[in-house]
Amino acid sequence: MSGSVCLNTLIKALCCLPGVGRKSAQRMSYHLLQRDRAGGRHLAEAIAQAMQQVGHCVRCRNFTENDLCGICDNGKREQAQLCIVESPADVQAMEEAGYRGVYFVLLGHLSPLDGIGPAELGLDALPERLAASEVNEIILATNSTIEGEATAHYITEMVRPAAVKVSRIAHGVPLGGELEYIDSNTLSHALAGRQDVGS
Amino acid sequence: MSGSVCLNTLIKALCCLPGVGRKSAQRMSYHLLQRDRAGGRHLAEAIAQAMQQVGHCVRCRNFTENDLCGICDNGKREQAQLCIVESPADVQAMEEAGYRGVYFVLLGHLSPLDGIGPAELGLDALPERLAASEVNEIILATNSTIEGEATAHYITEMVRPAAVKVSRIAHGVPLGGELEYIDSNTLSHALAGRQDVGS
Repeated sequence: MSGSVCLNTLIKALCCLPGVGRKSAQRMSYHLLQRDRAGGRHLAEAIAQAMQQVGHCVRCRNFTENDLCGICDNGKREQAQLCIVESPADVQAMEEAGYRGVYFVLLGHLSPLDGIGPAELGLDALPERLAASEVNEIILATNSTIEGEATAHYITEMVRPAAVKVSRIAHGVPLGGELEYIDSNTLSHALAGRQDVGS
Repeated sequence: MSGSVCLNTLIKALCCLPGVGRKSAQRMSYHLLQRDRAGGRHLAEAIAQAMQQVGHCVRCRNFTENDLCGICDNGKREQAQLCIVESPADVQAMEEAGYRGVYFVLLGHLSPLDGIGPAELGLDALPERLAASEVNEIILATNSTIEGEATAHYITEMVRPAAVKVSRIAHGVPLGGELEYIDSNTLSHALAGRQDVGS
């Protein structure tokens, strides 16, 4: 070891970032110390500030430092469509895809073995929100995994009494995908979900 | 954008780390906020502390928060061997390779076009250090690049008056390397540097 306590502490601390092992952490530390101390100081401030100030929107549970997130607080958003996603990163992905309605962020998926039930996902508040707002379509955009599908199924059953339209984002061949290399389950979904183009 | 100013600031700040683009920075931010706020706070402190406290050893220019680094301050190191490397990361690599002498860290290599000459590399202080200490061998461990070789050559010429032994780390086939896939320059170095094993 090079013997600098601060440096070793920094290397260990950087390992908490996803995808960063000891070697990358070392490279990052040396880079900051040797070439970008101002950037490092700015980074330290940005992390500290975000950890302290960023909380969850009281309405959709997305990340925000205010009570309401920028999307819930934006009067121009389509209030009739409610998109349910698993994480704030999924909100970002939906935004980039051009969705302009509002969201509900589960911050996870149903996982009874880990003790994550409907209450942990904030689903208790959903019927209330449906009653209080003008939502007429719920778009289920949970991941296309076993847990995501189970969560989508649970929500479908749960909101049935509210009598709003419930839809699930389509499964199928991704753009640019070649049929030869697509797995058969996806292809069978794409086939079942085929759409009329002749009319 | 999700609209949280703190979050966007954090994502941008993380991009200053080497090998981290916008997408990785996003993933890191969400990970810290969602799963590891304690780790994030600790990371912010570690960065801030390192940026403020870590400076250079007055003797070998390695990173340290004290006047002398742990290696220069360690009486048990072999004071007769002085290894000259380009960066503190190289010190770490040499330590792992089992070297137990002392170091001189250039913090770069000769690069006249970028205005990096001998003075910027701290080479002015080298003759003085050689005169004052018991060094009897200089091991040149600069990188095996054009700049590293030029720097090694410059130092060889520079320390000639001091009449100490000067050696360069060996070039050759890396352990586990297959001859078929080694470039011809390396192989020709390996051939020229062949060592007698028969006696």
